[in-house]
Amino acid sequence: MTVWLVGAGPGDPGLITARGLELVRRCDALVYDRLVAPELVAEAPADALAISRDGLDQEQINLLLVDLATQGLEVVRLKGGDPFVFGRGGEEALALAEAEVPFEVIPGVSALAAVPAAAGIPLTHRGLSAQVRVVSGRSADGEVELEPATGSETLVLFMALNELDSLCKRLLALGLDPSTPAAVISRGTWPDQEVVVADVSGIADAAVGLAGPALVVVGEVVGLRERLRGSADESQLYFSQPVG
Amino acid sequence: MTVWLVGAGPGDPGLITARGLELVRRCDALVYDRLVAPELVAEAPADALAISRDGLDQEQINLLLVDLATQGLEVVRLKGGDPFVFGRGGEEALALAEAEVPFEVIPGVSALAAVPAAAGIPLTHRGLSAQVRVVSGRSADGEVELEPATGSETLVLFMALNELDSLCKRLLALGLDPSTPAAVISRGTWPDQEVVVADVSGIADAAVGLAGPALVVVGEVVGLRERLRGSADESQLYFSQPVG
Repeated sequence: MTVWLVGAGPGDPGLITARGLELVRRCDALVYDRLVAPELVAEAPADALAISRDGLDQEQINLLLVDLATQGLEVVRLKGGDPFVFGRGGEEALALAEAEVPFEVIPGVSALAAVPAAAGIPLTHRGLSAQVRVVSGRSADGEVELEPATGSETLVLFMALNELDSLCKRLLALGLDPSTPAAVISRGTWPDQEVVVADVSGIADAAVGLAGPALVVVGEVVGLRERLRGSADESQLYFSQPVG
Repeated sequence: MTVWLVGAGPGDPGLITARGLELVRRCDALVYDRLVAPELVAEAPADALAISRDGLDQEQINLLLVDLATQGLEVVRLKGGDPFVFGRGGEEALALAEAEVPFEVIPGVSALAAVPAAAGIPLTHRGLSAQVRVVSGRSADGEVELEPATGSETLVLFMALNELDSLCKRLLALGLDPSTPAAVISRGTWPDQEVVVADVSGIADAAVGLAGPALVVVGEVVGLRERLRGSADESQLYFSQPVG
């Protein structure tokens, strides 16, 4: 028995790792997040248990994983993005370690770079940004820490759509140039991806009505988007190929 | 003709994406980095051109990609990690856009989270860190910017092995607690991975002699490593399964 904490990638099923897909295809039980592509759930063996984590809180998920493993099953816990980047994989791993259940982490493609890439935006670029700061807009510890931002740093905000207006106001109050470009990428790498670009003073208004999950990118690298979309038509920036 | 800028992942060949592997398996030409696993190069068709980028500078690589594509070939540019996280993929994409060569970016698993994961270290963890800062130790723009670091932020340094002593001294001078835990992970996810843990005041000495590439992690999340290694034996934290 082993529990495999597998990153499913940001949305497009083709972005799971080769190793992760192999584990899904031979598991006895699959416990999956709501944001995992149905194509990946369908890759599990027909006789495997497939359990959505919808409606379960973190403690219940931890108990479920321990319970399935102690029944002797090979369990894949398929998580959106990467298990260890705002994925609470560490909490599941700790629960397994404490229950003495063997586990392995299989990293995934995080939304962190893949979602900006799907919008034509590199996180780093020589001469524009050699530094990235990653913040969750919904920190469990209350207020998000936003230290003074500089124009040469790329700022990536996870789970920030609801707080975008107040986050941008705080960035401006901390001295960020109001003309710094920003992008909100809704449902990045999915077929219904939407991208909105504006300067940081106007991005919250521009993003009203976008669906979650969304990633926010602030920094000069956003300005590369127009040039990087030059020869690729929009559909080539998606990753909607079938698995396998 | 299309050029596919594909992330190969951090080292272990099983960490390429399903989509990336599919593209390697059907390309006409493969241009690969020195740090890409030979198992992935071997996945290209037997009659495909396979060209190491070793010895080519960035401008020569850009020209090579344009040249191969304008010969009508389907070209995979297989890059270590993720193309858009310190991968200079943006520069290659811009050169292709300017030459009006169609291209697509297939994100990969960056070393950013995968290499710490392979050492049992999550980048974020509720109550310990909800923020990550990513810096290259070898910035093209000279001095690395290191703003005041706080204990609740995880700091990840790419390409920092050679400058580790001076970087740590600067962090301490900026007010970082000298007892903050740090890890250096050498050749993360490869079979010969090595991990060294010490506090930030001693990590540079502890890391002397480690082979590159190496990733440095500074922050309280490093302290989770001992607990996350509890039930997994060391070999389970590697990802050395064969592809396919």
